[in-house]
Amino acid sequence: MTIGIVGLGLIGGSMAIDLKRRGFAEQILGVEAEPLHASAALKIGLADEIVPLEECIDRSDIIVVSVPVGTAVRIVCQVLDRFQATEAKDKIVIDTCSTKEQITQSTFYHPCRQQFVSTHPMAGTEYSGPWAAMPNLFDGRACIFANSEESAPKALKIIEDMYDVLNMRPLFMSASQHDVHTAYVSHISHVTSFALALTVLDKEKDEKHIFDLASGGFSSTVRLAKSSADMWVPILTQNRDNVLHVMDTYIEKMQEFRRAIAEFDEEGIRGLIEDANRIKKIIR
Amino acid sequence: MTIGIVGLGLIGGSMAIDLKRRGFAEQILGVEAEPLHASAALKIGLADEIVPLEECIDRSDIIVVSVPVGTAVRIVCQVLDRFQATEAKDKIVIDTCSTKEQITQSTFYHPCRQQFVSTHPMAGTEYSGPWAAMPNLFDGRACIFANSEESAPKALKIIEDMYDVLNMRPLFMSASQHDVHTAYVSHISHVTSFALALTVLDKEKDEKHIFDLASGGFSSTVRLAKSSADMWVPILTQNRDNVLHVMDTYIEKMQEFRRAIAEFDEEGIRGLIEDANRIKKIIR
Repeated sequence: MTIGIVGLGLIGGSMAIDLKRRGFAEQILGVEAEPLHASAALKIGLADEIVPLEECIDRSDIIVVSVPVGTAVRIVCQVLDRFQATEAKDKIVIDTCSTKEQITQSTFYHPCRQQFVSTHPMAGTEYSGPWAAMPNLFDGRACIFANSEESAPKALKIIEDMYDVLNMRPLFMSASQHDVHTAYVSHISHVTSFALALTVLDKEKDEKHIFDLASGGFSSTVRLAKSSADMWVPILTQNRDNVLHVMDTYIEKMQEFRRAIAEFDEEGIRGLIEDANRIKKIIR
Repeated sequence: MTIGIVGLGLIGGSMAIDLKRRGFAEQILGVEAEPLHASAALKIGLADEIVPLEECIDRSDIIVVSVPVGTAVRIVCQVLDRFQATEAKDKIVIDTCSTKEQITQSTFYHPCRQQFVSTHPMAGTEYSGPWAAMPNLFDGRACIFANSEESAPKALKIIEDMYDVLNMRPLFMSASQHDVHTAYVSHISHVTSFALALTVLDKEKDEKHIFDLASGGFSSTVRLAKSSADMWVPILTQNRDNVLHVMDTYIEKMQEFRRAIAEFDEEGIRGLIEDANRIKKIIR
């Protein structure tokens, strides 16, 4: 099978590595707008060739669109248009975006909608670009299929097989459920890390040695603040309503803590901490 | 040398392991109020004997007080009283607490103040109790000496040697500087993790499967929310003013983010994220 990958960054690049090495892909065709990324991807060996988008569509069996979510909506539509224009009825396009409502809405009425499978492999690191790609990134993680009933069963089956090669657990849900859930377990974590980094970096202006004291706890809490703006600006705006809702709950919890600490309310603080400790049962 | 350790939890227990195994301590005497912890500490081999506090003071050369900060203030004073009563001029007591202002203030006028060295080894995990103790916990981390000019140079030298055996980097600062810095690089991280856990656990009441989607990013941001109330209630109340100040800055940053997202202000969000990204230079 020939796999076309649009965007050879952390996700696209890591998929390229494992799909090739595990035998699912005979050939990987890459599409990469950024010349530096394109030459790095070739050097690292993420793709056999870098080609223009149209050529990639025409020569690939599956096209994986793995670019920031704003651009992805546009490119998935272009790919579907090309399927229609060339009567390529057996080709499949997938996206790997972190928000699902807009991309599934924008494609809903496309005559080739059935050839599109909307997925979100829940894996990653705080780094990006072809140099962030790595083998085994997806092993054991969850992959969400959003609105999978809108895809042709045959196309869906092929993409399920592909993610099976990547050792991912498939989960099926609606695009809107996906966007609510990821706001809670992914998007808010990024916002809280960004805010934490900003808070401490502000203080560092006066206190040069503040980071001498940073321990493992701080590093793990602030790690996601290294994540790229290119990826996160579109996620936060596309999932605006859900993200704002979670942020409001979160700010309320901070205010509850603030009140209890301000009033030296030891029982109140203890209650909040012990409630929070229930996360132990869930996260190892 | 005989080392007495009051509180054989994560910090006290881990010190016991490495001080014994690296030859600094010939004998470890433990003081442990909790019977379950006492028997576990003996079984694990953290201490050679569990003895009452007075016996521990009388038989030890160095007494390490490693209990939650509220109790530690009281015990350090008791130890100094006993030094005075028994004219034990060569013995040393240290604490390992996460807040320093109250403990240094409470001991300031004690006639044996010079025999007290106030330290904060900046190491730990989110777990507690004797079963959380581990070898090599302190290697390469910073150890803060607070108001070290209030200790006798000879006592200070011995404790510096002790932390050198634990492979820690010594940092010297005032108790008040310490409490400001730790509010920024440790205490706030815990509060943000607690609040994040509470936010998501609240949502879980309606959405049972929300944690199926939790990825590595979420786990690392929420990890500190497993930390114990026994340890954190006294830290947050003793360091109240600094913690509230940092929380206010943090809540402001969250509000800035909220505003930018609510207004679809892509440039604003990008600016905040790129500012936060500067943390890359500092935290690897």
